[in-house]
Order: sequence, then structure tokens, then C-alpha cells
Amino acid sequence: MIAVDRPIAVDAMGGDHAPAAVVEGALRAAADGIDVLLVGREGEVRAALAATDASEEARARVQVAHADDVVAMDVRPREVKRRETASVRVACRLVAEGRASAVVSAGNSGATLFASVLELGTLPGCDRPAITTTLPRVDGGELVLLDVGASVDCRADHLATFATLGEAWARVLGIDPPRVGLLSIGGEPGKGNRLVREAHPLLEALPLDYVGPVEPDAAFAGACDVLVCDGFSGNVLLKTTEGVVSMLRHHARRRILESRRAQVGAWFMQGALQRLREDLDWRERGGALLVGSPAPVVVAHGRSDAKAVRAAVRLAHYAHDGGLVGAVASRLAPPRDGGAGSTAAVGGASAPSDGP
Amino acid sequence: MIAVDRPIAVDAMGGDHAPAAVVEGALRAAADGIDVLLVGREGEVRAALAATDASEEARARVQVAHADDVVAMDVRPREVKRRETASVRVACRLVAEGRASAVVSAGNSGATLFASVLELGTLPGCDRPAITTTLPRVDGGELVLLDVGASVDCRADHLATFATLGEAWARVLGIDPPRVGLLSIGGEPGKGNRLVREAHPLLEALPLDYVGPVEPDAAFAGACDVLVCDGFSGNVLLKTTEGVVSMLRHHARRRILESRRAQVGAWFMQGALQRLREDLDWRERGGALLVGSPAPVVVAHGRSDAKAVRAAVRLAHYAHDGGLVGAVASRLAPPRDGGAGSTAAVGGASAPSDGP
Repeated sequence: MIAVDRPIAVDAMGGDHAPAAVVEGALRAAADGIDVLLVGREGEVRAALAATDASEEARARVQVAHADDVVAMDVRPREVKRRETASVRVACRLVAEGRASAVVSAGNSGATLFASVLELGTLPGCDRPAITTTLPRVDGGELVLLDVGASVDCRADHLATFATLGEAWARVLGIDPPRVGLLSIGGEPGKGNRLVREAHPLLEALPLDYVGPVEPDAAFAGACDVLVCDGFSGNVLLKTTEGVVSMLRHHARRRILESRRAQVGAWFMQGALQRLREDLDWRERGGALLVGSPAPVVVAHGRSDAKAVRAAVRLAHYAHDGGLVGAVASRLAPPRDGGAGSTAAVGGASAPSDGP
Repeated sequence: MIAVDRPIAVDAMGGDHAPAAVVEGALRAAADGIDVLLVGREGEVRAALAATDASEEARARVQVAHADDVVAMDVRPREVKRRETASVRVACRLVAEGRASAVVSAGNSGATLFASVLELGTLPGCDRPAITTTLPRVDGGELVLLDVGASVDCRADHLATFATLGEAWARVLGIDPPRVGLLSIGGEPGKGNRLVREAHPLLEALPLDYVGPVEPDAAFAGACDVLVCDGFSGNVLLKTTEGVVSMLRHHARRRILESRRAQVGAWFMQGALQRLREDLDWRERGGALLVGSPAPVVVAHGRSDAKAVRAAVRLAHYAHDGGLVGAVASRLAPPRDGGAGSTAAVGGASAPSDGP
């Protein structure tokens, strides 16, 4: 099996703390037994490698591929079109050439998306890949949410594609069969905006367990396993989650600091609070995963530290090893034009919008 | 000043726990010194009044106005068009007739919206009223969010109107001058969906302190005082907040129950946790407020108990007493057709969509 031996291509230059945090995180993933191909300016990457205290065993799993150019965090994603030697494009190209199995980047997320579509195309039958992430539910389960930013303006048929993509990924995650919901603001099909009302019958027609429109609070309560939405709404939901967690943490701290008694209580609760923090730590989750692409692409948070990069590499490895791409491909309808789909679509109407 | 003496019209038949909880809540508000006019089936309302143990002083502030009909929680909002004697329509009509100063209903929120537009119209220069609510921020301040469901499909100029409405309400709340943000998924104007990109220059042109596109997590952190969005996104944001609070509470409980030590800690923290719960209790916030209407209309939660109804009546009273309508009217541009605006628009393109 050649596939098992191909490394994960990691954009060593992407992210607020690159290359040091990326290299350190990649080495931690290597210590877990995952082969990694670091892509970036070779001198800088090798210097960062030398600065770590990783074991020889971990180092032996890490290779370096040179790429001249770096896409900054703040450039417009479509810039990557003319930046052929940018690390994120080279990382994707190495996958297209069969030299790596999946891609991880903590760089400009819109640029990563563009680079993947340019170099890898999309799976036949999928004209819009989606970015998916998971959120913890009330019942201890996980909610697969998509799209969270690849396509901010969607048509109803895009949402139907997302339902298929998300359902396949949920199966790879071991949820069988996944219940799929459509993000809305009421449980009845007549509520929601125009997009939701148009998408509802399309989702009803799909061969999957569609439970209908689902409100965000119901989704957190466990009404579905996969929640489908346009990239704007999904990103709003995701960032609201981050905002509320942070708001609650601050309010709790303020209330505790007001009372000596509560401070004693907090001391006793240290362990439980630490475990709660880990339950919710985005750095444990490895970032967002692009589905609909011919290889797993993990879009890690720009402010990823080594811990987050390690989780991102593990996520890419899990998606590859679990057969994400095969699972998605087998569930997608054949492309309507009978052609091969894939890179022909690049740069046309199906190129991703400038995501977050 | 006749205005000061006019009571708040309360739809006694609206809500999951009507009329008992509504009557009880209205009496609590009356005990705070607010005059209330209960609107509903007189026999049922008087029976509910008799069943309470309110003081004679509170009872003296409560009157009853009869209305035959009741709009159920699950009917389509436009049903209220032909339900002229429904309690929510009569409540709005009493305001239009100058017999009450503001309206409160915990009934079908879409129907309340429709009833208010039918009976009261909208302020000149405002073709779309918006529903607003406030959320607690990280910094201890309050975030005014609108629209949260009156208009699920918006044009860019509607968002500009919402900015004006929200800014005026924030001033009544004592925030001066309020910083207004446009909900988006990136801080730069080029990000966001088509609606956001179109609305941005319109908001820039308004005579208010517009801080640009704001992401949800940044809004919770305090980047703005007023956050403007379409009713679908706003409702998603609001219900995500509820979902995350509930999810965190369950995760925290699970982590505490796992450990004896944490249970001891929780015992010491009881008081602080209770205060934290109150910080976040929607029942303390009184529900959502319709702005852009010629009188304050409070859309209370369907599952309101007496505590929530009392807060809703207090909110209506505060908005009326604080001069919300005058503040909004003075900031709205005159209507483009030079006419009086108002009820002429009812039932036409500007009627609210079926909200949540």
C-alpha cells in the first residue's frame, strides 16, 4: 500500500507562529508515528527543525520540500493564482503528484482553499467543496457543521451537495447513520430564509437520513449529527460559539473573584475546570477540514500553536486513513455533464469565494 | 401628561403558559408601579386575576379589555390579517386608539409582528421594523443585536435602516455614542457575503459611529455596541448563544459529577453560580423589542413564566418612558415619497416575513 506511506504535506510557512510552531507541531505528530513533509523555505525550515529538541525517531519521519514563496495572512485569496511557488500551492501540488496524501496549512484560509482547488480540483459531482468543523453537543456527541466559510453565497443545490459531503464525513467519524439537519430559525420548512426554503425539498430527495430544518439550539441539544448551511451562516455560528465561550468564561471569573467563598470553591474545582477547558479547546480539534476535494485538506487556525498543528496533522491523517475521499466520492452523484469534473472547474464559477 | 398615564397593553392570551403566567407577571409589574391593561377573554382573565394573591395596590393598576379570539402559537402569522378580534390585534389597536402606550405579547411572535404592522403601521422613513435584543459581552457591557427575525431576507438598504433603529435604541439605553458594527465573517469590507458587501458603503454614509464589519466573537469581546444583520443571521446568532450556554452548562455538570472534589467546590460556589445564572437568564431580559414601530412592542418568549412577563412589561415601560419612538423618529430620514409613511405600507411588500 503506497498510500499509507505517503506523508502529510504541511505548509511550514503558514500561520501567525510559522515556521517555529508549525515545525514543532509537525514533529509532535511525527512522534505519534505520522510521516510529515514540511513545505517551505528550506533554510528557514531546517533552522526551525534544528532549534527543537525532538527525538531522532520523530526527526526520521520528517522530510523537507523547498518552496520559495509565502502567501501572507492578509492578501486576497485569489492572489495565489499567480503565486505558483507559494508554500501552500507547492504543498497541494505534492499531493496532486502523488508525493503526499493530504495537506495541512495554518496560513490564509481563503488562499489554502484556492490553492487546493487550483492544484487538486474537486471530486467529480462536487462543484463546491465545503469546510467542515465539529462542535461539542449537550449530549456529549459531536455536531458536524458545514459549510463554515468556503462559499459565503450559496445556491440551494450547493446545500444539497454539502449534505452529501457532511454525511460521508460523519460516517468516517463513526456516526452511522448520521442524521442530517438544515440550519434554520424554526423547525417547520416554511420558516427560514429563501435559501432554506428552496434547499429543503432538495435535501428531502437525497438518499440520507434528513431530519428537516433544525435551529442552532436544537442542534446543540442533539437534534442532528450533521448541520448544513451556507458558509456565511456557518461561520457566524462557529464564531458565535467562540464568542459565547469566552463571554461565559469572563463572567464566571468575575463572579468568582467577587466572593472569597467562590474562590475556595474554584480551588477545589481546578481539575474539573481544566477538563472542561480541554473539552472545549479548539486546539484539540485540529481545525477545519475541506471535503469534496480529491485529498483531505486541513485548514488550521491562523493562530495555531504547536499543539494545534499537531492536532491538525492528526486530523489530516485520520481523514486519509479513514478513507474520507473514497467515502465522499462513492456518495456523490456522477457529474451532470458526464465529464470527469475535477480541475476543469478551477477558476470558473465554482472557484471558492474569498472565505474568512 | 396623558402619555404617562396610559397603561401597557398586555396580550393576556399569548404564550405557552397564558393566561395564568401572563396575568401573574402583569400583576408583578403593576406592583412595581406600572399600569397594565390585560387584553383577552374577559372571563378567563378575571378568573386568573382572582386566582392570584396580588396586593390591592397592584390590582388597582390593572384593567381588563375584552377580546374574543386567540391566535394559536403554531398558526401562520399572516392568519392574523383576518382575525380582527384576536387578543394580540386588539392590544395593538388599543395603542393605535391612544388607550395604551405599548404592547407586550408572549404569543406567536410572527403574529405579533403582523398585528403591530396592521394596527400601528411603521414610522415614517422606516419600511421595515426590526426586532432587537441585547446580549451580555465579555467586558460587562451589552450588545444590541438586530434584526433577530422580523426580516429573514433583507436588502442592503434594510440593513442601513436597522443601523439607524439600533443606534437610536442604544442611546435610549444610555450608550452614547453607540458604536455600530455590521455582522460579518471577517474584519475587512471585502469579506462577508453579497449582502454585507453591499450594505457596508450604505452604513459608511450614515451619520453615526460606524466601526465597519464585525465578527461575532469580536462583537462579544466589545468591538461594537450595536450589531446589525439580516433576521436569519441574527436569529442564528441568538439561538447559537442559547445553545452554547446550555451545552456548556451540561459539560460543566458532567465534569463536576465525575469528581468528589469538584462537587465540594461546586457547593462553595453555589452563590457565584447562582449570580452567573442570573447574569445570563433570558427571563431577566424581558424578550425582544420591535423598533421602527410607532409604539414600543415587546415580543416575549413563548415559554415566558411570570418572571419573564414582568421583565417584558418593564422593558415596554422603559422603552416608552425613555422616549424610544421619538428618538427613532428623529433619526429616520423622511420617507422618500414625501408621504406620511405609516399604515399605507401594511400588507404590501413591507409586511414582515413569517418570522420565528
